[in-house]
Amino acid sequence: MAEEVMNNKQIILKHYVEGYPKESDMEFKNNNVKLNVPEGSNVVVLKNLYLSCDPYMRSRMSKLEGSYPITGCGVAKVLKSGDSNFQEGDLVWGMTGWEEYSIVTATQSALFKIHDKNVPLSYYTGILGMPGMTAYVGFYEICSPKKGETVFVSAASGAVGQLVGQFAKMLGCYVVGSAGTKEKVDLLKNKFGFDEAFNYKEEKDLVAALKRYFPNGIDIYFENVGGKMLDAVLVNMKLHGRIAVCGMISQYNLEKTEGVHNLFCLITKRIRMEGFLVSDHYHLYPKYLEMIIPQIKGGSVVYVEDIAEGLENAPKALVGLFYGHNVGKQVVKVSRE
Amino acid sequence: MAEEVMNNKQIILKHYVEGYPKESDMEFKNNNVKLNVPEGSNVVVLKNLYLSCDPYMRSRMSKLEGSYPITGCGVAKVLKSGDSNFQEGDLVWGMTGWEEYSIVTATQSALFKIHDKNVPLSYYTGILGMPGMTAYVGFYEICSPKKGETVFVSAASGAVGQLVGQFAKMLGCYVVGSAGTKEKVDLLKNKFGFDEAFNYKEEKDLVAALKRYFPNGIDIYFENVGGKMLDAVLVNMKLHGRIAVCGMISQYNLEKTEGVHNLFCLITKRIRMEGFLVSDHYHLYPKYLEMIIPQIKGGSVVYVEDIAEGLENAPKALVGLFYGHNVGKQVVKVSRE
Repeated sequence: MAEEVMNNKQIILKHYVEGYPKESDMEFKNNNVKLNVPEGSNVVVLKNLYLSCDPYMRSRMSKLEGSYPITGCGVAKVLKSGDSNFQEGDLVWGMTGWEEYSIVTATQSALFKIHDKNVPLSYYTGILGMPGMTAYVGFYEICSPKKGETVFVSAASGAVGQLVGQFAKMLGCYVVGSAGTKEKVDLLKNKFGFDEAFNYKEEKDLVAALKRYFPNGIDIYFENVGGKMLDAVLVNMKLHGRIAVCGMISQYNLEKTEGVHNLFCLITKRIRMEGFLVSDHYHLYPKYLEMIIPQIKGGSVVYVEDIAEGLENAPKALVGLFYGHNVGKQVVKVSRE
Repeated sequence: MAEEVMNNKQIILKHYVEGYPKESDMEFKNNNVKLNVPEGSNVVVLKNLYLSCDPYMRSRMSKLEGSYPITGCGVAKVLKSGDSNFQEGDLVWGMTGWEEYSIVTATQSALFKIHDKNVPLSYYTGILGMPGMTAYVGFYEICSPKKGETVFVSAASGAVGQLVGQFAKMLGCYVVGSAGTKEKVDLLKNKFGFDEAFNYKEEKDLVAALKRYFPNGIDIYFENVGGKMLDAVLVNMKLHGRIAVCGMISQYNLEKTEGVHNLFCLITKRIRMEGFLVSDHYHLYPKYLEMIIPQIKGGSVVYVEDIAEGLENAPKALVGLFYGHNVGKQVVKVSRE
């Protein structure tokens, strides 16, 4: 097989990051890549179409967890495949590199084949991909929700939060979300159908703010931010409340995390607080798709994306995530199919 | 019915407490009490025999939770009863006052009749009462323990901890306990059969200490202390570990609780952390007694008590609890039967 050498634009992490990541922590490079499948290997050659910016990526930029080249979820087209489960022309999503072309294996990348293309392809970085499954398993599997319960979601307009709120409304819960701008608060109330929403940056007293929206307490908290918000939630929880710990984005860029002071409430209120990773639950993915695709097509679930154009804008998009610059799921479009 | 007026020695809380409680926060008083059951009432007149000193009592001494006269668990003899479920001469345990005689109702006091008297009566403040049930439901119902798992218990020689360790050993777990003196550490290893034990006051680095005893991590943490120990445990937990939050005695006397910084581990390790109160689980009490009484009589479960003699020594005993002066379950003997 003739070797096909291509120019491959890449985003490289220049050094490990402390504090908030900056665009200058990353650099744009041109490298060559051989787009071939070595004889007898099972690698898959991908042309990346969409890349996903997700908060968890921050930890991989720190020395502690260190993974040097930037990797993340993405949607890609299979150019060549040594894996019999994937054919040239297939569309897939999974872990890929921040570059135009990636050479991966299906196992390392946890590649999923995309079957339904009558939805925006970028959705496979969001509602139909990792964040969607995160919302689904976090809410249904970890929160043990019941009709009529009160639900609070932080970072509620983000990739995961906007779906948790909609799932909770579908089940007949009372749902309140917090976000960091007026625009996002409007989205929560007018687009995603949250019962109430507030801008946490405008609240001097988060305990009082939550008390206002939940005079009788919170049954379920979907935790995306950590820190002060978690402390305020703990004192506002109801007896036998549940906290699904999905993320703690407010803490990722701090040298020392904020201490959480109100954990004693776990005892007095008999609260269950449980962390989870979506990767433990992918066996539920087919069931999730069966549920969610008709909802998307029927318009009963909506999804807002914030799409940056071009790989060169990926660093800015990723950095913006930690300042809340994105409105909805942050995606980077690398290439047309 | 003739009124029987008796002198009633009492321990009264003089004022709400800030910081560590002191003996001088409480005072010894002599009051008269009428030991009669008003016509048509369902009160029960108790002669208190043993009073229990428990960490949770600290919160009732603060303004926030405020209950002015000191109350706590105790073992008592029924002198008179307007409640058809209790007869003169019955022995009972439940919530009572820190005094010689108490006038209560069965409901308010959650009175249990004592049927088996072939065990030390004081045990009904401990292994056969609230702390015993706490260890039982906390370990079996909240921790979801499995044979072969690794278990860490803090405040391990206390009223609850010494039992959790023994229950875990009975199930075939590897069990390590922490305590605050050499004497207690020896008890844990030589009397209660813990696999290992350490004095947390002698460890400069709790994370390293736990790593030493759990090179492969902790499956189950039975949390009695909170604060720094919880932070050290979180980074030493195994994937899918469980933390039963029973108490946080290290925090009760602080103006501002220590912050807990490592909650992000809940996500990466998919940890379930759950608070509980024994009062939700008393329907299991008969089942527990059926299990535990033969074990006590057969000697396969042991229980260490620290018995202070006389009501006048109750304040000192209670204060000592927060300095770890007690060795085993702290009891106050008020009167012989």
